[in-house]
Amino acid sequence: MKLNSNLYSFSDNTFYNVTEKVNKYKEKHPDNKIISLGVGDVSKPVVKSIIEAMHKAVDDQANMETFKGYGAYYGYDFLKDVILENEYKDFGFTRDEIYISNGTKSDSTNILELFDIDSKICVSDPMYPIYMAGAKILNRNITCLDCNEDNNFIPTIPKEKYDIIYICSPSNPTGTCYTYDDLEKWIRYAKENKAVILYDNVYNAFIRSENVPRSIYEIDGAKEVAIEFRSFSKVASFTGLRCSYYIIPNEIDKDINYYWKNRTINRFNGADYIVQKGAMEVYSDSAKKEIKKNIDDYLEGAKKLRRVFENNGYSVYGGIDSPFLWIKTKDGMDSWEFFDFFLEKLNIIIIPGIIFGSNGDKYFRVSALASKGVIDEAIERINKYYEK
Amino acid sequence: MKLNSNLYSFSDNTFYNVTEKVNKYKEKHPDNKIISLGVGDVSKPVVKSIIEAMHKAVDDQANMETFKGYGAYYGYDFLKDVILENEYKDFGFTRDEIYISNGTKSDSTNILELFDIDSKICVSDPMYPIYMAGAKILNRNITCLDCNEDNNFIPTIPKEKYDIIYICSPSNPTGTCYTYDDLEKWIRYAKENKAVILYDNVYNAFIRSENVPRSIYEIDGAKEVAIEFRSFSKVASFTGLRCSYYIIPNEIDKDINYYWKNRTINRFNGADYIVQKGAMEVYSDSAKKEIKKNIDDYLEGAKKLRRVFENNGYSVYGGIDSPFLWIKTKDGMDSWEFFDFFLEKLNIIIIPGIIFGSNGDKYFRVSALASKGVIDEAIERINKYYEK
Repeated sequence: MKLNSNLYSFSDNTFYNVTEKVNKYKEKHPDNKIISLGVGDVSKPVVKSIIEAMHKAVDDQANMETFKGYGAYYGYDFLKDVILENEYKDFGFTRDEIYISNGTKSDSTNILELFDIDSKICVSDPMYPIYMAGAKILNRNITCLDCNEDNNFIPTIPKEKYDIIYICSPSNPTGTCYTYDDLEKWIRYAKENKAVILYDNVYNAFIRSENVPRSIYEIDGAKEVAIEFRSFSKVASFTGLRCSYYIIPNEIDKDINYYWKNRTINRFNGADYIVQKGAMEVYSDSAKKEIKKNIDDYLEGAKKLRRVFENNGYSVYGGIDSPFLWIKTKDGMDSWEFFDFFLEKLNIIIIPGIIFGSNGDKYFRVSALASKGVIDEAIERINKYYEK
Repeated sequence: MKLNSNLYSFSDNTFYNVTEKVNKYKEKHPDNKIISLGVGDVSKPVVKSIIEAMHKAVDDQANMETFKGYGAYYGYDFLKDVILENEYKDFGFTRDEIYISNGTKSDSTNILELFDIDSKICVSDPMYPIYMAGAKILNRNITCLDCNEDNNFIPTIPKEKYDIIYICSPSNPTGTCYTYDDLEKWIRYAKENKAVILYDNVYNAFIRSENVPRSIYEIDGAKEVAIEFRSFSKVASFTGLRCSYYIIPNEIDKDINYYWKNRTINRFNGADYIVQKGAMEVYSDSAKKEIKKNIDDYLEGAKKLRRVFENNGYSVYGGIDSPFLWIKTKDGMDSWEFFDFFLEKLNIIIIPGIIFGSNGDKYFRVSALASKGVIDEAIERINKYYEK
């Protein structure tokens, strides 16, 4: 028996290392009040009507007449139908092309099981590090495309041929978005190279700019090349509940959904019934209104955070159509040095950019998904520090 | 872009084909009352105290103070602790060696990501077909070991060297159990060959016989070679809720849990909080009592089903420490022929043995997880048919 050596090759640049460093610091300084703009977890609770829907679903499990055992592997139709109606009405997808799952973190690399093991994959650097880690664990070939200020954190179309392209927009970590123009270019590339785009669109609810599509399918031809992933985590505070969905258009390949259904039957047993019932309620009028307000609040926090960093001389990206800000370090610090500086001097946790790839080494990520209280406190501390 | 050709190689012998055949029959005979002893889904609703615990957990999600976002990747300590206390007290496992997940179906082949891709895997035939399918999808080498009446459906220890051994006990589909003696032999083999046993133990709550261990860790040396998988699905009617757990002992390899934590951080975001709270309640005195009664009821149903088939001249295996009966067809029928016969003549769904491997082709599987009403009706129909 030999262990999968890919699992040993992970660097010391992970979220796990952030947690470890924070814990060590806390042990040494138990009285310091540390606040976090780090991990992108939400701070708003689940809205009332969704809570009620989940209570009802819990009760369904209590009686033989309403009890739900194994659900559909690909998700319940009641949830598929409201998603198709509310999110994809203009695109004509069928139930056969949508899958309900338990989180885009797993979905975004599980999907690699759909493709030949020798497929050539590309991903931007910086990136959501799960793509790289998942691809490595699954023994896939994956290459990084440079992203930096010069290309506005959107990789330049490569000369090489890739089979699979990861795109995350609004981007985690940079908070930047692919515009209609950007996506048109990538879709053209994908068509010319018979490639597939894996479009991680989990932050789509944060988009406010006119030139940024809410879905990749708004662009002509996308249905022939793109699989789009979304989640209820950030939209509806489902990070602890686990519900996601994705679209695999039949236009990509006539057999693609046959293949993927074979995979899913054999590798997954569906998402939790209670949570699917809760997710369905996301599209009620009452929940929609409350959710919109929550996202507006997060975006307001992002705006305030942009301002405080800019006012104190930082170069800030993102934070407009995204809860994430991508900020350049100062004074030549690399991203771990900056992490230590912010932790020690301000007792604020941020995420060092190197975690997202080598091009992140002079950057850090700030999350505006924290509560208003935490964001205001962080702003006060930053202003105070720079006043000195 | 090329699709994963392993996904096309699935045979026409799957649960999916059972469903298709049944649906076709229903279309043609809309008035026939078809009952199912097929898919191993539970029929008992979730017990009251677990329902209450889940209501409380739903309410936790409604308020900022009690809201739970991202949980521990490997499961909440509150659940780990009650499992270790109630299921593994004598074995001295630590929180670091137990993982909470969303179902053994996924867990049992996800675990292959822990091992080198060139590992040689063996599995019994007949088997829970998910092992074979998952291994194929993940591009692994997997070999079948014959099981039949001669070896009492426990494969003979092979001469060849394998790195990974799947064992399911109580077995799905055959309902047979590995005794202390059987497991001692396999543990010895695993040690001699530096192999790992993946021990699928999800039906352990059904064990009543003295010579069958409840956990593989009851056998000396098992901690050095075995990973044990369990689930709340059949025990607590969580098939629609999704919660499972497994143990990876540190004794297998000093780095094994470091490797697996790296994998899990990157490939999974934890099980649903509400369901973990429900699973914790499984170990309350009140739930324990009700659950014991439920399992006893299923076993009573299994006993009655054994009797009716035996009385009508069938050779029956399993159904004693397991909700599954593994029964030999009659009159030289292969398992699809028998399926058609039972569907058409008795309007009863059973599962053709071929679905579980080529050695199942003269057998069929019957599930006693159906409700008492269904089981009694099935017994009546079988008796009536053979009276003619």
